[in-house]
Amino acid sequence: MPKPNRHPPQQKEKMKKKSKNERGIFPRKVKGFRDIDASLNELRWKIINAASKVYKSYGFEHWDTPVLEYADNLGKYMPDEDTVDKGVYSFKNPEEEPVLNSFGEAIRDKDGQAIMENAFLSLRYDLTAPLARIYAEMLLNKYQRHQLNQIKPDLFRRYQFGPVFRYEIKLTPGRFREFWQLDFDSVGTEDVGADAEICMVLSDALEAIGLQRGSYVINMNNRKVLKGFLQSCGVLDENLEQDILRVFDKLDKIGWEAMELELGQGRTDTSGAEVKGLQLEPRLIAQIMEFLRSFDKTGSRKSVLEQLTRSLADNPVAGEGLEELKKIDAILDALGFDETRVRFDPTLIRGMAYYTGPVFEVESLQSYTDEKGIERKVGSICGGGRYDGLIQNLLGIKVPATGASIGVDRLAELLRLTNQAPAKADGPVLIGHLDDDLTLEYQRIARELRARGIETEVYYGYYKGFRKMNKQLKYADEKNCPFVILIGGNEAAKGVATVKDLKLGRQLADTISDKKEWNARVQKEVPIAGLADFIVSALNKPGI
Amino acid sequence: MPKPNRHPPQQKEKMKKKSKNERGIFPRKVKGFRDIDASLNELRWKIINAASKVYKSYGFEHWDTPVLEYADNLGKYMPDEDTVDKGVYSFKNPEEEPVLNSFGEAIRDKDGQAIMENAFLSLRYDLTAPLARIYAEMLLNKYQRHQLNQIKPDLFRRYQFGPVFRYEIKLTPGRFREFWQLDFDSVGTEDVGADAEICMVLSDALEAIGLQRGSYVINMNNRKVLKGFLQSCGVLDENLEQDILRVFDKLDKIGWEAMELELGQGRTDTSGAEVKGLQLEPRLIAQIMEFLRSFDKTGSRKSVLEQLTRSLADNPVAGEGLEELKKIDAILDALGFDETRVRFDPTLIRGMAYYTGPVFEVESLQSYTDEKGIERKVGSICGGGRYDGLIQNLLGIKVPATGASIGVDRLAELLRLTNQAPAKADGPVLIGHLDDDLTLEYQRIARELRARGIETEVYYGYYKGFRKMNKQLKYADEKNCPFVILIGGNEAAKGVATVKDLKLGRQLADTISDKKEWNARVQKEVPIAGLADFIVSALNKPGI
Repeated sequence: MPKPNRHPPQQKEKMKKKSKNERGIFPRKVKGFRDIDASLNELRWKIINAASKVYKSYGFEHWDTPVLEYADNLGKYMPDEDTVDKGVYSFKNPEEEPVLNSFGEAIRDKDGQAIMENAFLSLRYDLTAPLARIYAEMLLNKYQRHQLNQIKPDLFRRYQFGPVFRYEIKLTPGRFREFWQLDFDSVGTEDVGADAEICMVLSDALEAIGLQRGSYVINMNNRKVLKGFLQSCGVLDENLEQDILRVFDKLDKIGWEAMELELGQGRTDTSGAEVKGLQLEPRLIAQIMEFLRSFDKTGSRKSVLEQLTRSLADNPVAGEGLEELKKIDAILDALGFDETRVRFDPTLIRGMAYYTGPVFEVESLQSYTDEKGIERKVGSICGGGRYDGLIQNLLGIKVPATGASIGVDRLAELLRLTNQAPAKADGPVLIGHLDDDLTLEYQRIARELRARGIETEVYYGYYKGFRKMNKQLKYADEKNCPFVILIGGNEAAKGVATVKDLKLGRQLADTISDKKEWNARVQKEVPIAGLADFIVSALNKPGI
Repeated sequence: MPKPNRHPPQQKEKMKKKSKNERGIFPRKVKGFRDIDASLNELRWKIINAASKVYKSYGFEHWDTPVLEYADNLGKYMPDEDTVDKGVYSFKNPEEEPVLNSFGEAIRDKDGQAIMENAFLSLRYDLTAPLARIYAEMLLNKYQRHQLNQIKPDLFRRYQFGPVFRYEIKLTPGRFREFWQLDFDSVGTEDVGADAEICMVLSDALEAIGLQRGSYVINMNNRKVLKGFLQSCGVLDENLEQDILRVFDKLDKIGWEAMELELGQGRTDTSGAEVKGLQLEPRLIAQIMEFLRSFDKTGSRKSVLEQLTRSLADNPVAGEGLEELKKIDAILDALGFDETRVRFDPTLIRGMAYYTGPVFEVESLQSYTDEKGIERKVGSICGGGRYDGLIQNLLGIKVPATGASIGVDRLAELLRLTNQAPAKADGPVLIGHLDDDLTLEYQRIARELRARGIETEVYYGYYKGFRKMNKQLKYADEKNCPFVILIGGNEAAKGVATVKDLKLGRQLADTISDKKEWNARVQKEVPIAGLADFIVSALNKPGI
């Protein structure tokens, strides 16, 4: 019998038309954001837990800061309208608060009333800016403002992980606007021994995560060496120095030839766009190119140091940087961190303008084949360096600090691309739900298995009276369950359960086509009384 | 020699004046937000890890969703201006996107151009709304839109933890605008066996976290029972039903008398504000009060069920609710979850209007003494229930679901208030930095200790050449270090280290005033060659 039409034809037509043109709610993630499924989450937390354990073993403590901060506290980016500023998600605080001066006092109008505003809040774009804020607050809790120029800042070593947010206008595949970082920093120390330590921590952490020795290398440089070199070439202006370093930093991406052009007259890139050049004098460009090309970063640290000493030791800034690298080399040597783990690369820059001393970058030496069949290098996966300008923006004083950040999601991606990700862990043992009268028995068995340390789920899917067997088996398969336990009325009467070995089943699916043979191999009748023992031993060997 | 004045007096005065009246940057957290220090973080992660392990043992998978969502996807709260809506942090997406209809198609103007907008984004205010969004997306990936009315929705069991955000206008002590939740849900099942399971998971998780059996209890009710009761009293209007339930929900806070007044003519609260009453008829109010007061929630589940059956079994809605509670009781009984863990409380509501069946709330039976010396009950610490309207807002269909949420930060607070929080873990062993020439030796020893599984930090504080001994000891004390290892030039020459037992030192500080005696008890000279063995064994026994 056809269903009666609930609406006459014209009205129906109208409804349809209306719904097409009317704003509606459609379930979706914000563009550039993503959900993390159980499998990727497992990998993410393997990385976080393994690295955190290493950070902790060096005495770094686990701290956390809010996702939201006052925009002015994060520095660098400042929104000036009711909208977000480039690169950062910002918005006006719904709460009105007094406008403060840099001493934290409310600014008052001529009647003595505090001037109010809705300050801009930002989603943190990294974990370093919040570290500066928290450290600055600690100093203000401990010292008077006027003492700050005299104090010896306290040592603070913390690690932190969590999501950070960047409004990237151009989204490329694999890039997201929310991603996780895993930072560790030593604040309050000028000793470059602390920088050497950061490299050791990074290396130990990456290996604890599962990277093979030799599959990555930490490249290290010292900003002071490059600064000294540029000074020795006559580049004394800091802005010009920064401009030149920015071009150096592109070397990996654009290659030697394009870099040379960008130091000089400029060039046209592959998309046809004009890239302005720095218009340096040809002699200076030649000097720079010769210097940068003269190093073999795969050589020993000692040979790089000797070469640098020969050419730059006369410059006081470069000399200081060289002394620091020598000290770092000695520590790394003494502790067995040789060139398979840490190399010196005098061409390394690491974009961020705030680095002031040693900088380092972890390069993956792995390659992978992309979806088009092209072999690709993974390249830089994480890095860090010394930034002695920490909290200058907030308190006007400099505090020395050094640290590094692991891009958790990027590393997870690398492990997957290069087949180094650990195999996905098994799902729970699934107890099928075949007979409602046996619910208590299913639950009892599940509890017994859990007491033996085995993750066990009783299937509970149920909708309008339906709970189909094949849906249960499919569910178990999608969830990577190692075993399914099936007990129907007949089995219960006999005191037995049918155990299906899904893992073996998946392996045999390609080779055995006969259903009977397949069943004989992958399923077994087991007395319910001995079920827990059976599962415990079956989980520890292949096949049942 | 006095330092020269860099600025003449007038100019200095001017500068000072200027800085007081000028907006400045002052380091601070956003009001209502907080940092989590190492000690609180340790507790937070103990809770998360212990509970997650239990969730997983029942077959719940760990998923994650973004912190930001489209405001309309989160439902309930919708901002209508350029500002955040009540209770939720929202702002306009910097990215312009097409306006969609409920089929996910761009809405076009009469020229066929897609109409664009900057949609509102919100910081998630809980983890259930994102669960609805992710589940709705999964259904749309798998089925055609027109099939949705016919499908049997898939079973999906996930847990998730992370920060959620609420713009609470009134901030009370201990309440924050960012706090962590730890949710687990079974989506796609009508079987109240799944609700019984949620209670078992909650109970197991709380005990795994460290709550003693008997220090908490799960109170359970069924919305259908109350609905049926109100129907039997003649309350058939759903809005009136919700209004009455909202008043019931205040019972714990305002007491019986005030509740009775709010059902009737209204009342004046302690602050003097008028609270409007529901103006129910006196006979109805008497009926309601008699019903609610007649239960002893500390009695057995069976006796509560019998009492409810006597008075309500005739009403079909209440009858259905009673059958569900009987099934739940049978499962809990069979698995040993007696009234020390789960009780039935027919007066329990749990505010949220979206609950449709069983609801439960964990009540802490602990009390604590507040800063004014008043003994206080902790009360409700977490809860959950069945909400079969999931995704109705997003896709127009109902999907049955049940779940619960642990308020991580609230539970951490409870554990601290009631002295149930585990003692703070030891910090690292600290190797003092007394002599720069011994840096390599310090690092070598640290590495040896780490290889033995001992967290070890080499002190690296260093600023303008200073690295004072007492600052190092203070640092170790603040960081809860169990031992400090001190090796100066003399000690190195003799091949020994001085080991200070800071733990013992803290214990003895009150009883021993003689410095010599104190030193003799808490410090020991140990050969460097045997240092690792010494520390390993010292960590496992009190004193050195």
